[in-house]
Amino acid sequence: MDKKVLSQKSIDSTCQSMIKKAEDEGIETIWDRLEKQQPQCGFGELGVCCKICMQGPCRIDPFKVGAQKGVCGANADTIVARNLVRAIAGGTAAHSGHAKHLAHILSKSAKGEFKDYPVKDPEKLKAVAARLGVDIEGKNNEELAREVARLALEEFSEKEGPNLWAATTVTKGRVDTFSKLGVVPGGIDSAISEIMHRTHYGVDADPVNLLLGGIKCSLADYAGCHMGTDLADILFGTPQPVVTEANMGVLKENAVNIALHGHNPALSDIIVQVAAEMQDEAKNMGASEGINLVGMCCTGNEVLMRHKIPPLTHSVSQELAIITGVIDAMVVDYQCVIPGLANLLDCYHTKLITTMPIAKISGAQHMELNEENARECAGDIIKTAIDSFGNRKPEKVNIPKEKNTAIAGFSTEAILGALGKVDSEDPLKPLIDNIVNGNILGVCLFAGCNNAKVPQDHNFVTMVKELAKNNVLILATGCGAGAFARYGLLTPEATLEYAGDGLKAVLTAVGEAAGLNGPLPMILHMGSCVDNSRAVDVAVAVANKLGVDLDKLPVVASAPEAMTEKAISIGTWAVSGGLPTHVGVIPPVLGSDLVAEVLTVKTKELVGGYFIVETDPLKACEKLLEAIKKRRQGLNI
Amino acid sequence: MDKKVLSQKSIDSTCQSMIKKAEDEGIETIWDRLEKQQPQCGFGELGVCCKICMQGPCRIDPFKVGAQKGVCGANADTIVARNLVRAIAGGTAAHSGHAKHLAHILSKSAKGEFKDYPVKDPEKLKAVAARLGVDIEGKNNEELAREVARLALEEFSEKEGPNLWAATTVTKGRVDTFSKLGVVPGGIDSAISEIMHRTHYGVDADPVNLLLGGIKCSLADYAGCHMGTDLADILFGTPQPVVTEANMGVLKENAVNIALHGHNPALSDIIVQVAAEMQDEAKNMGASEGINLVGMCCTGNEVLMRHKIPPLTHSVSQELAIITGVIDAMVVDYQCVIPGLANLLDCYHTKLITTMPIAKISGAQHMELNEENARECAGDIIKTAIDSFGNRKPEKVNIPKEKNTAIAGFSTEAILGALGKVDSEDPLKPLIDNIVNGNILGVCLFAGCNNAKVPQDHNFVTMVKELAKNNVLILATGCGAGAFARYGLLTPEATLEYAGDGLKAVLTAVGEAAGLNGPLPMILHMGSCVDNSRAVDVAVAVANKLGVDLDKLPVVASAPEAMTEKAISIGTWAVSGGLPTHVGVIPPVLGSDLVAEVLTVKTKELVGGYFIVETDPLKACEKLLEAIKKRRQGLNI
Repeated sequence: MDKKVLSQKSIDSTCQSMIKKAEDEGIETIWDRLEKQQPQCGFGELGVCCKICMQGPCRIDPFKVGAQKGVCGANADTIVARNLVRAIAGGTAAHSGHAKHLAHILSKSAKGEFKDYPVKDPEKLKAVAARLGVDIEGKNNEELAREVARLALEEFSEKEGPNLWAATTVTKGRVDTFSKLGVVPGGIDSAISEIMHRTHYGVDADPVNLLLGGIKCSLADYAGCHMGTDLADILFGTPQPVVTEANMGVLKENAVNIALHGHNPALSDIIVQVAAEMQDEAKNMGASEGINLVGMCCTGNEVLMRHKIPPLTHSVSQELAIITGVIDAMVVDYQCVIPGLANLLDCYHTKLITTMPIAKISGAQHMELNEENARECAGDIIKTAIDSFGNRKPEKVNIPKEKNTAIAGFSTEAILGALGKVDSEDPLKPLIDNIVNGNILGVCLFAGCNNAKVPQDHNFVTMVKELAKNNVLILATGCGAGAFARYGLLTPEATLEYAGDGLKAVLTAVGEAAGLNGPLPMILHMGSCVDNSRAVDVAVAVANKLGVDLDKLPVVASAPEAMTEKAISIGTWAVSGGLPTHVGVIPPVLGSDLVAEVLTVKTKELVGGYFIVETDPLKACEKLLEAIKKRRQGLNI
Repeated sequence: MDKKVLSQKSIDSTCQSMIKKAEDEGIETIWDRLEKQQPQCGFGELGVCCKICMQGPCRIDPFKVGAQKGVCGANADTIVARNLVRAIAGGTAAHSGHAKHLAHILSKSAKGEFKDYPVKDPEKLKAVAARLGVDIEGKNNEELAREVARLALEEFSEKEGPNLWAATTVTKGRVDTFSKLGVVPGGIDSAISEIMHRTHYGVDADPVNLLLGGIKCSLADYAGCHMGTDLADILFGTPQPVVTEANMGVLKENAVNIALHGHNPALSDIIVQVAAEMQDEAKNMGASEGINLVGMCCTGNEVLMRHKIPPLTHSVSQELAIITGVIDAMVVDYQCVIPGLANLLDCYHTKLITTMPIAKISGAQHMELNEENARECAGDIIKTAIDSFGNRKPEKVNIPKEKNTAIAGFSTEAILGALGKVDSEDPLKPLIDNIVNGNILGVCLFAGCNNAKVPQDHNFVTMVKELAKNNVLILATGCGAGAFARYGLLTPEATLEYAGDGLKAVLTAVGEAAGLNGPLPMILHMGSCVDNSRAVDVAVAVANKLGVDLDKLPVVASAPEAMTEKAISIGTWAVSGGLPTHVGVIPPVLGSDLVAEVLTVKTKELVGGYFIVETDPLKACEKLLEAIKKRRQGLNI
């Protein structure tokens, strides 16, 4: 990789300018803290450090000179596997905690207890209910919502049958494969507990058995993600394409800027609704442009997809938003909201408002979402932001100019809708025909976070340009999708500039048919990280139509700047789903040859998918293209 | 502490002789591995190392020179709190996984699917059902078992009300305190998932909020423990006092020695039943004394309490059992079964047999318990052990001679039964009267593991002698109880030798009334680590009778050689239950002054209980005695 790029903290010029501002103002950011952490612990990086009991911490000497076993006798294979599957449990708990929260909201809403959460998309409600086996005939929204919510909450519980959300949304081939391996999850919370039990002192010491447990838990994670998507669509609407702008240039000096940050739309969607009614209140306080909502991370993706709220910035650059000096309030729910934000509150006027009982931050203001009176809570929060507008420190204000147009909102339903404009009888046909004829070489799903160890967005941007050139259609979610938005890559223009001829022709045909006067974006922004489930829905539809299983499709995935435990759980279910899955950072598994071998080779035999670990983005593209071509050969196309 | 003692690995002479044998034979044991791990990572020991995301590992410099924040901005307080509450989740998952396993067995047994698990104690079944609010009138065992099992399984699930097992077994005062703090758990698995979610990257960064989450999860752990005890009693019988012998001298050269190791009696209880019928088979293979079952760790406690199977050894000395050369099979279920056991299989003839799907060990033989045919499985396992008898290596055989008489089996019911011999109208009266008159100064529950960092059993034995001398009645569970058994401390003789005059008088009166011709043991062995719930039942009964809450009683707890995550979760619920709770090893929390302060001081204000960390056993006794005396003053007694 280019050394100049490697030395950068972010390839985003708005971020670069804010990093410079931070340096000038003597403000610490995530990159400074990463630097202060150097050198990082090599044992931890290799995954061979174990802190599970109080006889430890133990560590295995990777040079094979010192200790090769922990106090209990666990070797590197067992320790690495235990740590890895605990990370999968962490990711699963996060995604499914989000889904469970929405399930409770849907349940109470259907019972009339939460008046601010009516069913917004009755069609999606019906579709989900039918898929879950609910008899939908003659039932009204409330009845269906009650049944879906009940089934959803049951999915977390101790149960004997397979997890319904997982079982009803994948191919029959996958179900068979998972059954054969004994990795079909029941309740989601049960799967998490099982991992915590089997990784306890003196329980599972067989690394392969542990990794199979990890696969099972990752499938519970998949179920949680899919449920999160389904329930958000039911409650807040299924996304359809929207055009907006992205990057820090969307901030307005004369508006009350409120950043919506976190993952769950339970509060942010209500804030969007209420803010529309409070524009005058802001104007009365001197904000001539009223209230300007902007999005961050996956909460940003949720409100982008449904309300075209412009995405501001993502993941590692979240502190930089505050450093612009014009964020009057940052309203956070949970996940990927770093405590570093609170360190900035002494220097900037921003109100950092935590809203969830399980996610407080020392130094932030806590205004808890009470779902019974969600609109009132949202109003209070917006009022706090409006009050904060008057406290700006003019000498700190510096809004980067850059922003780019971005088209997002590509739910599965939206994609099928666009394809339906080409062939209304058989919407999948144009996609499949073009995969078969090679106009589309394959499909790659980009997911996952940024990681301060990688120059922000570098791997994402480098890879999509290379893959698009090679006629690979890109699906994107999470912070990766946000990055593409900020660089203007979610536009017809980007398709014209970067896509290979075949891909360009297809996207143009679909775009024209859909009345866009130009091609579809080469990257379809599908939403937040739980919305990786949408990509699975597309792949499953294609697989079922072709009559093959997922592990035969020319579909791959990449988390080129992976960072969280959620990324590990998603990556594991992508592999389990049959996808060759690239990871662009070194996961903490290299301390065990056996675990590394299982993840990158053996899983291919077991589930068809496998991990590709490659830190160089262009080399990663080569490997993904190779995998796609191999899959095409397998299908004789 | 005496330097000579400190340099010892175990104060148990049988262990010492086996350690010497291991050294002579060039065999590695847990203590060798601990030595090879020196120096252990100081960051990990202080709890300031974080591996939760792939930007790490991060560590906070305890000398305050280097990094004070992780990459995300988390400081030492947040990191220490996150690590600690994840440990509580691990412990909870283990205990409650055990309980859940029994709940499934009871459920299927009641449905007629598992023929080998009839209800053994219908009285206990009725009592538990009634406590849970089941209308027991006119229902047969199967009906009651079905209802109790259903309620039990529901306790793991996502649910809105409080956890039934926790709410129905503590004082009203505790329920109020927990409600006020917002720490009443619902489903057990939900509580575990919530901890995994809130400790995920970018979720909870408020150490106090995290610790309250830890308390909530620990109460779920308590519920799991209590359920584990209740269901085991229903399925396998409520223990009554038994007399047996303990320590390695119980091994027999001319018998097939089968060690039952782990925690869950689901298999071991069946093995006990089936072995009785297979004595001749063993004799036919040349084992003139037939089959000799011995117990290890908490599976050992379960079969000791119900079938007077002699306890062999515990925790850190588990490898030494194999080193005797006469263990023909070690049959393990889960928890505290160290992978180090498998390293011995090259040198000794022992068959190491894993039996649970979530707990395999590379190198061991896996013979999975199929509960539908549990007796058949047990028979196959015993056959394997009998076959193994013929493969002994005579040159490796060395059975230590030492063994001691031990009285165990003190379930709550058994204790009340013994007291009822003194006052059949009001069994608690003699206990309460003697606490009030000072014959019994207080009560101390000894729980928890051994830890290779402490000379095995030294803290346990030193402390009980000192406390008994001061008229403190001892309750014991787990490996601590096992230690007391091995040293002959569970005997009338020990009472005569060590108990103070007041305590001796009471125990003699109760013992005589119960027809023992001598005093009760000064230490009442209540069972395995889930059976710490039995001690709570006794304390709750006393508190209710006195009309005060648990945090007013002169009752304390100690885990003087704590090691596992289970010990952390039990310790946390003991503190939450209002008990001053001693820990004899340094838990990984000292990297945060705030967390240490909360655990040792602030919790006193919140819940009445608090941690006392003291590695010197005699100083620990001073502190516990002081706490007991303060409580007595509070009660004006």
